[in-house]
Amino acid sequence: MRLLQEKIKNDGQVLSDQILKVDSFLNHQIDPELMLEIGKEFAKRFEDEGITKIVTIESSGIAPAVMTGLQFNIPVIFARKRKSLTLTEGLITASVHSFTKQETNEISIAQKFLNAEDKVLIIDDFLANGQAALGLIDIVNQSGAEVAGVGIVIEKSFQDGAKMLSDQGIRVESLARVASLANGEVTFKSEKVEELV
Amino acid sequence: MRLLQEKIKNDGQVLSDQILKVDSFLNHQIDPELMLEIGKEFAKRFEDEGITKIVTIESSGIAPAVMTGLQFNIPVIFARKRKSLTLTEGLITASVHSFTKQETNEISIAQKFLNAEDKVLIIDDFLANGQAALGLIDIVNQSGAEVAGVGIVIEKSFQDGAKMLSDQGIRVESLARVASLANGEVTFKSEKVEELV
Repeated sequence: MRLLQEKIKNDGQVLSDQILKVDSFLNHQIDPELMLEIGKEFAKRFEDEGITKIVTIESSGIAPAVMTGLQFNIPVIFARKRKSLTLTEGLITASVHSFTKQETNEISIAQKFLNAEDKVLIIDDFLANGQAALGLIDIVNQSGAEVAGVGIVIEKSFQDGAKMLSDQGIRVESLARVASLANGEVTFKSEKVEELV
Repeated sequence: MRLLQEKIKNDGQVLSDQILKVDSFLNHQIDPELMLEIGKEFAKRFEDEGITKIVTIESSGIAPAVMTGLQFNIPVIFARKRKSLTLTEGLITASVHSFTKQETNEISIAQKFLNAEDKVLIIDDFLANGQAALGLIDIVNQSGAEVAGVGIVIEKSFQDGAKMLSDQGIRVESLARVASLANGEVTFKSEKVEELV
């Protein structure tokens, strides 16, 4: 998605060869117009899948997920990282390990919002080693619903999440695929392909 | 806002005379179409204020805030409740006390996203005793920007947040004002007024 790639090039900050900071339009400050375009792009890519629900995880997944839900006119459910006072019973939970933070957290979704008839599109802002996506897939599977695919705003293709999900037969659509953050520069996977043409 | 009132009546759950649960369209599962209408309504109410930025707080404020930002075509910044690994320097922070949870948390926004030229609309899902709104106002004031107003999806008018903010001269626009949750029933403030007509 060219618009997103340009935004990453112009406004993203490469903090190391592992960390891309996009807090000016996705993770802290949000660009609503860009989110709308992202929602349209996810809707286009998954339009033939009969999606009935979107599942994401707080907080940075919410904006792109809600814009995608708007296109499909279907509900969006965000998994919580900490338990709510008024959401205590009937929770489906999964463990998510963060390699960066070196901690394991429980994420949860209220069971009543997913059922065996649902075809779920999982949306998240980043895909690195895939632990958050795996947790969300685990929750959807526990609910009896079907995972129709995973939509990612920014994939760090040099980490193993995308490959791991694909190896499990899960369709992954990433709108920007970062091949490398070496030398303080963002290189996209598609650019490399284009160079070969 | 009639559409929102109907949604609260039909899908909200009164857990006690203090607690209204709206996890089926706002707090956990999100109704994107409703969020769009909410965004349009906030944009209409604040259209003459010259708003340049929207500030909200994760997680349930994000969806209505992003839809409002879409109408104005301006950025949305969400305050974080816990610190990010890649957001560590240049933070403006405020303390927010939760009476329900009996704990005080620090919320933060990166200083670089707000400046003295900004006119800020603060958006949040609930207004009860106003502690979260006060924290956000504190952050905006620290940045040198101006608070143009506070937009609230659901105001619990029987708690003192709305009055306290108004007493400070802050314009508060709440799309649904709950006068009472007594006897397991939601009564809106505007309904009471209508009864007098």
